[in-house]
Amino acid sequence: MKSLLLVAHGSRRAESNDEVRQLARQLDKQGNGEFGLVACAFLELAEPSIPDGLRAAIRAGATEVTVLPYFLSAGRHVVTDIPAEVNIIRAESPEVEMVLARYLGASPDVVELLLELASRRDG
Amino acid sequence: MKSLLLVAHGSRRAESNDEVRQLARQLDKQGNGEFGLVACAFLELAEPSIPDGLRAAIRAGATEVTVLPYFLSAGRHVVTDIPAEVNIIRAESPEVEMVLARYLGASPDVVELLLELASRRDG
Repeated sequence: MKSLLLVAHGSRRAESNDEVRQLARQLDKQGNGEFGLVACAFLELAEPSIPDGLRAAIRAGATEVTVLPYFLSAGRHVVTDIPAEVNIIRAESPEVEMVLARYLGASPDVVELLLELASRRDG
Repeated sequence: MKSLLLVAHGSRRAESNDEVRQLARQLDKQGNGEFGLVACAFLELAEPSIPDGLRAAIRAGATEVTVLPYFLSAGRHVVTDIPAEVNIIRAESPEVEMVLARYLGASPDVVELLLELASRRDG
């Protein structure tokens, strides 16, 4: 079973973390069934952590997990911290395939999405 | 003349700020000509500031500026800080229309974009 783990930074604001949880539910709903399980995890300040999120997916039967960083730029968190957390579980569960997707800001489609937001007048 | 100002948080990493500047150039290139000027500004840690970015657009002839927050969640920066910075220029140049667009994370299209990233296997 393929699983998708949306990874966000995590915030002291509960509402921001809830936005991420809501987004994971939307990904699950709008996905084409490619992922049998969609969940989210946080680098810091919120639960679950990335290792705990990965462990939960594996316990639920995931044989492959795609980790998707919900980040805008390729800073230390994307380049170093998230891969390090994923590697903890790679060592723990070498039979499970871990795929690190590109971070949100790296998508060329962000440009069109921003242009669309800029052209709307409903604020 | 309509102008678009992409507003990012700003980072201590020069590369992250350069990613934002590059994104503003892409917005300019891929825009349909709706905006005669596209630029970026930063809430902190990088130049120009939001007021300076707005002043530059007005000096260049903008009669309407759309401010587009390049942020993922509706935290303090989006809800309070960016509007406050925009209001400085509203008071300074009341003849210029300022439009505050929704922040990136509020776009319903983010879901499709993330699913697309998740399905790509080229990392």
